[in-house]
Amino acid sequence: MNSNNMEIITGNDYINSLRNRQLKVYLFGELIDDIVEHPMIRPSINAVAETFDLANSEPELATAISPFTETRVNRFLHIAQTKEDVVLQNKMQRRLGQLTGTCFQRCVGMDAFNSLFSTTFEIDKKYATDYHHKFKAFIAKMQRQNLVIGGAMTDVKGDRSLAPHQQADPDLFVHITKRTSEGVYITGAKAHQTGCLNSHWLLVMPTIRLTEQDKEYAIVGAIPVDAEGITYIYGRQSCDTRSMEGGDIDVGNAQYGGQEAMVILDNVFIPNELIFMDGEFEFASMLVERFTCYHRRSYVCKSGVGDVLIGAAATIAEYNGAEKASHIKDKLIEMTHLNETIYATGIAASYQSKATLSGAFIPDDMLANVCKHHVTKMPYEISRLAQDLAGGIVVTLPSEKDFKSETVGHLLDKYLKGKADVPTEYRIRILRLIENMTMGRNAVGYLTESMHGAGSPQAQRIQIARQMQLDFKKQLAKTLAGIDKNQKKVLVNEISDYFGRVFDVKV
Amino acid sequence: MNSNNMEIITGNDYINSLRNRQLKVYLFGELIDDIVEHPMIRPSINAVAETFDLANSEPELATAISPFTETRVNRFLHIAQTKEDVVLQNKMQRRLGQLTGTCFQRCVGMDAFNSLFSTTFEIDKKYATDYHHKFKAFIAKMQRQNLVIGGAMTDVKGDRSLAPHQQADPDLFVHITKRTSEGVYITGAKAHQTGCLNSHWLLVMPTIRLTEQDKEYAIVGAIPVDAEGITYIYGRQSCDTRSMEGGDIDVGNAQYGGQEAMVILDNVFIPNELIFMDGEFEFASMLVERFTCYHRRSYVCKSGVGDVLIGAAATIAEYNGAEKASHIKDKLIEMTHLNETIYATGIAASYQSKATLSGAFIPDDMLANVCKHHVTKMPYEISRLAQDLAGGIVVTLPSEKDFKSETVGHLLDKYLKGKADVPTEYRIRILRLIENMTMGRNAVGYLTESMHGAGSPQAQRIQIARQMQLDFKKQLAKTLAGIDKNQKKVLVNEISDYFGRVFDVKV
Amino acid sequence: MNSNNMEIITGNDYINSLRNRQLKVYLFGELIDDIVEHPMIRPSINAVAETFDLANSEPELATAISPFTETRVNRFLHIAQTKEDVVLQNKMQRRLGQLTGTCFQRCVGMDAFNSLFSTTFEIDKKYATDYHHKFKAFIAKMQRQNLVIGGAMTDVKGDRSLAPHQQADPDLFVHITKRTSEGVYITGAKAHQTGCLNSHWLLVMPTIRLTEQDKEYAIVGAIPVDAEGITYIYGRQSCDTRSMEGGDIDVGNAQYGGQEAMVILDNVFIPNELIFMDGEFEFASMLVERFTCYHRRSYVCKSGVGDVLIGAAATIAEYNGAEKASHIKDKLIEMTHLNETIYATGIAASYQSKATLSGAFIPDDMLANVCKHHVTKMPYEISRLAQDLAGGIVVTLPSEKDFKSETVGHLLDKYLKGKADVPTEYRIRILRLIENMTMGRNAVGYLTESMHGAGSPQAQRIQIARQMQLDFKKQLAKTLAGIDKNQKKVLVNEISDYFGRVFDVKV
Amino acid sequence: MNSNNMEIITGNDYINSLRNRQLKVYLFGELIDDIVEHPMIRPSINAVAETFDLANSEPELATAISPFTETRVNRFLHIAQTKEDVVLQNKMQRRLGQLTGTCFQRCVGMDAFNSLFSTTFEIDKKYATDYHHKFKAFIAKMQRQNLVIGGAMTDVKGDRSLAPHQQADPDLFVHITKRTSEGVYITGAKAHQTGCLNSHWLLVMPTIRLTEQDKEYAIVGAIPVDAEGITYIYGRQSCDTRSMEGGDIDVGNAQYGGQEAMVILDNVFIPNELIFMDGEFEFASMLVERFTCYHRRSYVCKSGVGDVLIGAAATIAEYNGAEKASHIKDKLIEMTHLNETIYATGIAASYQSKATLSGAFIPDDMLANVCKHHVTKMPYEISRLAQDLAGGIVVTLPSEKDFKSETVGHLLDKYLKGKADVPTEYRIRILRLIENMTMGRNAVGYLTESMHGAGSPQAQRIQIARQMQLDFKKQLAKTLAGIDKNQKKVLVNEISDYFGRVFDVKV
Repeated sequence: MNSNNMEIITGNDYINSLRNRQLKVYLFGELIDDIVEHPMIRPSINAVAETFDLANSEPELATAISPFTETRVNRFLHIAQTKEDVVLQNKMQRRLGQLTGTCFQRCVGMDAFNSLFSTTFEIDKKYATDYHHKFKAFIAKMQRQNLVIGGAMTDVKGDRSLAPHQQADPDLFVHITKRTSEGVYITGAKAHQTGCLNSHWLLVMPTIRLTEQDKEYAIVGAIPVDAEGITYIYGRQSCDTRSMEGGDIDVGNAQYGGQEAMVILDNVFIPNELIFMDGEFEFASMLVERFTCYHRRSYVCKSGVGDVLIGAAATIAEYNGAEKASHIKDKLIEMTHLNETIYATGIAASYQSKATLSGAFIPDDMLANVCKHHVTKMPYEISRLAQDLAGGIVVTLPSEKDFKSETVGHLLDKYLKGKADVPTEYRIRILRLIENMTMGRNAVGYLTESMHGAGSPQAQRIQIARQMQLDFKKQLAKTLAGIDKNQKKVLVNEISDYFGRVFDVKV
Repeated sequence: MNSNNMEIITGNDYINSLRNRQLKVYLFGELIDDIVEHPMIRPSINAVAETFDLANSEPELATAISPFTETRVNRFLHIAQTKEDVVLQNKMQRRLGQLTGTCFQRCVGMDAFNSLFSTTFEIDKKYATDYHHKFKAFIAKMQRQNLVIGGAMTDVKGDRSLAPHQQADPDLFVHITKRTSEGVYITGAKAHQTGCLNSHWLLVMPTIRLTEQDKEYAIVGAIPVDAEGITYIYGRQSCDTRSMEGGDIDVGNAQYGGQEAMVILDNVFIPNELIFMDGEFEFASMLVERFTCYHRRSYVCKSGVGDVLIGAAATIAEYNGAEKASHIKDKLIEMTHLNETIYATGIAASYQSKATLSGAFIPDDMLANVCKHHVTKMPYEISRLAQDLAGGIVVTLPSEKDFKSETVGHLLDKYLKGKADVPTEYRIRILRLIENMTMGRNAVGYLTESMHGAGSPQAQRIQIARQMQLDFKKQLAKTLAGIDKNQKKVLVNEISDYFGRVFDVKV
Repeated sequence: MNSNNMEIITGNDYINSLRNRQLKVYLFGELIDDIVEHPMIRPSINAVAETFDLANSEPELATAISPFTETRVNRFLHIAQTKEDVVLQNKMQRRLGQLTGTCFQRCVGMDAFNSLFSTTFEIDKKYATDYHHKFKAFIAKMQRQNLVIGGAMTDVKGDRSLAPHQQADPDLFVHITKRTSEGVYITGAKAHQTGCLNSHWLLVMPTIRLTEQDKEYAIVGAIPVDAEGITYIYGRQSCDTRSMEGGDIDVGNAQYGGQEAMVILDNVFIPNELIFMDGEFEFASMLVERFTCYHRRSYVCKSGVGDVLIGAAATIAEYNGAEKASHIKDKLIEMTHLNETIYATGIAASYQSKATLSGAFIPDDMLANVCKHHVTKMPYEISRLAQDLAGGIVVTLPSEKDFKSETVGHLLDKYLKGKADVPTEYRIRILRLIENMTMGRNAVGYLTESMHGAGSPQAQRIQIARQMQLDFKKQLAKTLAGIDKNQKKVLVNEISDYFGRVFDVKV
Repeated sequence: MNSNNMEIITGNDYINSLRNRQLKVYLFGELIDDIVEHPMIRPSINAVAETFDLANSEPELATAISPFTETRVNRFLHIAQTKEDVVLQNKMQRRLGQLTGTCFQRCVGMDAFNSLFSTTFEIDKKYATDYHHKFKAFIAKMQRQNLVIGGAMTDVKGDRSLAPHQQADPDLFVHITKRTSEGVYITGAKAHQTGCLNSHWLLVMPTIRLTEQDKEYAIVGAIPVDAEGITYIYGRQSCDTRSMEGGDIDVGNAQYGGQEAMVILDNVFIPNELIFMDGEFEFASMLVERFTCYHRRSYVCKSGVGDVLIGAAATIAEYNGAEKASHIKDKLIEMTHLNETIYATGIAASYQSKATLSGAFIPDDMLANVCKHHVTKMPYEISRLAQDLAGGIVVTLPSEKDFKSETVGHLLDKYLKGKADVPTEYRIRILRLIENMTMGRNAVGYLTESMHGAGSPQAQRIQIARQMQLDFKKQLAKTLAGIDKNQKKVLVNEISDYFGRVFDVKV
């Protein structure tokens, strides 16, 4: 990696750091020469660049003092030392959602860092290994170089009813294929990897609970994105090719977009010093669960994206001259109510963080799941309401080329006029932004990724079920119903965990 | 129009009837030479063609005996003579939704025919005009030639707070600009006209309640689609250009699509014999309300489209090997419950039809509005659930060209395998269909058109409010609460209208 | 039974027919002497009486010509001969809901009559038994005497995971305990039997699918309500004792109420001529499913009750001077939208009725389940909205005795005044009606019975699942996705059943 | 007041402190002699007593160090000094909801204390009055005596479209009727006053925004509950008289209940030192808005009550032998998801507290409103689901007297048996608890009070609207849509308030 020894400071530095890498990226069946200048890819790079610029413009929000470097580092690379640190992740995420209107792709890396930090600590505690030490060194290096980390977790999975070692094709989950004294070689594929091409390093991690027979799948390690043996195949998004048509209107949000690609690993090497788990299969579930705990509440970013969509809906209502109708106002209130629910449940999860044995703080798992579960529904409803306010024209607008055409442009300008003092182009631009966020390119991030990222809805329900403490609640009911009255005293002692979560008066 | 004297029988006849017309259609700033062969337009033509083929394969469903020609005619051209006729419109609509998975574009014309039939009858009754007679002749001619009628109602509207005659630009609503002894000339524009290019004739109608000062806007007439003075500007849809990439996978539903365009009328002539309202402004609201009454319940078609999406969701669950999970099954049940609610409320509205003075039957307006109001929400939820079942891969799939590429195609085939006995391509095809219906081209029809077509949600709420008979219901409550006990007798007589609707024991 | 030979004509005749019966009814641990004059029971009798009065005042709605007596009989005793007959059941049900604001208790009997009619026909067809003939004779007798039939289906069930013959106590499902040449004796208990005391006869039926080992449980027969061996224990309802306080305000709906009791059968005799199934265990599921098909759509009555509650909510808004606020109006619209959805789905289910082999018509099962499934939710939301409009005072009102007290009555009159021209008492009466319907006595019928009557929510979901024709829908999706294209032709033949339901062009 | 000089320590002390007061309380038209021993009132007293016992058993949770007394005081009497203090209010509230399953009535006083603390500070700042000083003295006295404070805000309001001074009857809002050198006299009535009889002092406050003409209504002061001139009329609750039947089953929750009464003030005297606002009408809205800000988020208590109901639902599922069905488990998950949403949004509102000028912390108003707005819906849905799990028997159970009857008790014991190893009585007790919480006495607090307490749903929507910062959000959208690009810089400065709320990095 050419950027290894150069510290990145601005968004522009970051963009430059992505040039001239030897990546094997396919799109539409072709090898891409330079992702930085590719019009379909660049918006996703711009979104990541914004995370660097924000660190400069709002350092309280987007940076923190690292205990490893003792300097101010980008918050995306920081290990949360306090509950405030965890809360500030959420505030930064909402802000970046507001600024980009899309997925800025760095949360996976941040959440992988934090969950791996405490997991390696606990593996070492059990097995006297030195993963945690090595991982801290890796973190400090990434912080100093100010690099972007992608977290490669989601395997392609094949037949969902079979464990990794039971699959007909062993490669359907990433696993070790060869060992040398220097390290290990891994093969497999990771699906829909957010921002993988825009990262400098990938943290490869298992994606599910593993058993002893899956030992060779229990591998965690860091690899540079341009490591030998990696092939990337770029994912299509709704309306993706509009960015290749020229113009900046039909694309809706010309500057920013998300990115997902399939990462295919063909005997990729991980040196010993970058291996952070190797065979301790029983820790796979701890890693996955801690990662999802952080990551589910990271979807607070969608409240920032929601702010943009609420703003767009309010703007089109104004441009249509309809903003004073009571039902319009009521729909904006409903959108806000839903959007703030996402934010509030995330903030509460973060605020109720607890210290792990490693010292790193981790959110309340119940509330993190409640937050994400709302995210699988509320953006869809906010989006539906935005389409309601937009009017049918949002899906029947003629093309940008027609608007700019000498032959028919003036007709469209005349007939698509809304409120007299608003230029027709403004109206069209807002409508295209709403299309972009509700059906187009950024709907991928705002809706479908909200559904499936960090686990599909059922995954949250399972996690909520695990923590709903029915025995405690049954006892509350029985006591009040006059059953088992003598158990009341016992109760208070037995529920200390519950107290811990709900009433963390002191840590 | 070249097809004037040729009866169209099959879908193929219909497609041929669209060739060689002198239409001025713009798309991407260019004049289109032949819409029939244009890859972005052809799927919408195919969808209309299906309405002809169904008339041949299922004549009980898709045709009826016309009282004007005394022959079997396409049901889309038929004036409903009984409540069964109205119900059968819905059954035909659901079936066509199932067959095309999209909007087949002929309901506007059918609903315009039926609403104008009874409205002209009532204008004539009041003013001794001869609109109804002329309109029947027009209907009979269309039935004999078996042509497609588009209904051009939605004006572009400009400032929504001003009446037509108050607009700064008088053309923001279609109006008469000139009169001769042969007829009138009209100017203005109609927005998002469903299937306009695929029609042979357009019925131009006013879009809102008019006052005396809007008299020149109270014009209804028929014009051939290739009349002099018409310019069409084609509307963009999400992912529309995928049909121009070659291939039939990424497009999702390669055969069928919807169509909406803006129709700009520049002094277009309507001869006297094709004028069906001219200045009787107080009948504009009757026409609009009757049209929306038919049309709101016509959205039962979406239950047919929903059948396809439910089928796609069930298929992907099977391909993923997940179809036996209880939560998966439960989501399919929920989708079905919602989808059948659309169907049932539409059927009930149609079944509760009443004869108008003209003899044509018209649906129950309350239930028609209830039906449409569900259509503004339920497809969105069905769609959300379909994305839930699909998994995140629905928005991160690489392109068809990558799948077919010699370099990486085999990698995708290997790594995107679900259940062992299902070809990877099948899985991809179903995912692309789900993308198409939930975010792509047919999401325009399944979602946003469901929201706004036949009136946006608030329009239904207003109509429900008008008919909710609060005085009757207040009296029911007061009687039971012991207030005004002596009013009970009076009540029964006063609510005859209500009885009419709810208890139409005999017509 | 003293009324056996006397035809009942008016509601008053009916009430008199209930006097002087030898019933063993317990309430608050006491044997009740005369149910007719018991203040807690009388309102439920009044509700049934209304079904007689309606037959006189609106015979088109509430009676029909019986093919067995060839005279006009109460519709609750009529076997549906056409789809219009089935639809008219719903219209009568809504009307009675409007008039009583509660459960009028006769639908179970009507639905039992109809389902048993076709089931006995099919048993006879298989086994050459003569149940159908005997049952027709019974029907004719009931029609001539104009009696009330209760349908006793729901067993107490014990351990839900065990079949009847597996229960520790064999009596947890009703079964035959003894046989003589004259008939059989049965023992067991039926829980929450709607209107049982207000009936003249009970039709005892099994409650679940049975196997060969449950043969002695496969018994259907008619017994008079005052048969030897029956004990009734009256069910409590929320706020039930208010009717014993004197006064007619706090009770909310002084005139009408529902009734449910537990019926305990201790070796009750059924003579041979009144046995309509005996051992044909495999027909138990047919009977249950047909019964629930009719009965689920019978819950359309709740739209009539909903009319009352909507009226009450509109009245209190008016009395509070708040009826013009846009959010108030919008909530009334929402209540109406939900309420009409119940009605419309029921009507559609009834309209799509099909003839059974016996000639009796039965509703569309999918839509009947969709209807009932909405009934398990929508009344709760309508009720919540009614409480919203009522204001908190609905649950903090002082008692009727305080209002009428000489000491503090004037203070309440002064301080609980709303709009100046509305007597305070009117305001209080409407509030008490809302309390009655949302938390009080009639909330039992409007809410909880809506949830569980005719099967709890999950029962509908199971039935929807059985009929959702996923294979047909999968094929629709596959065809459009370009998979298995050559199957399209086959499809049309295979789905005849589906066509039957959706497109019943001809019977 | 007899308890003035005696410090209350235990719940029992508290109960004794309520004895022998000279209160004029009417119930069922009669003057009540001793509220403490009245079976309908005692449960509400027990609920308040629990707040004293909790302070002893869990002092970290339910007490705090007062800056005024420098001793540990009950948290309900504490002025929040930090955001943690505000959060701990919520945790205490949830805990008390769990322990009592009802409304424990002390939040109004706590929230009145806190809002009046900062409001008096700001009045003094403007007018150099000494309200704040006097109020601090009053607080300190209450803390030392450990008394219960009720907050009397809600006037009866009369015609909602008129201001206080415009009402036909001036008493429809509480106002000053006379002034002396010692103080003022007030007249009027406060509706549905939670826990008023169980308080020692009432803080009388205005209920709406006032204008100069309403000056005599701008009065805030403290009065002992047994002051001369006060008449209390007790509010009825659903099923209230069950507690007078003897027995402890049918009542559902025998120990705890809520309390609301109408408080009628007839020239009640307030001495100067207990007047905390007098004529500063423009501060009425500040007081009301701050009070509702605290109080809306105080409804987190309902998540504690929800815990009980979830526990009851899980218990009945177990007793029915149905707890393993996937749909049962899924409903418990849904109930939990909703319940935790209430908790999380409340916690987030509290955590985002800000210091007022007085130093007291106040919650985030947007999130407090989001929390309460969920409370107006979610308990209703949780309650509906609890009834779903309970089965219909929850509303058809025979009476406790029947269960205990020698004649029929054994029959009920036999036939209402669920799972073999669970005593029938346990099953009945849990069902009665569910009835109590969903329709009975505690449904008043769990449902209707959740709807209207601290402001009806529309009040929250108005408050959300005020704070939804549409201009900021519009700008976000315009920037991304390519409109007004040069405004981005300006933006960051203009939204400092927004940053304040969302990103309160440092106070």
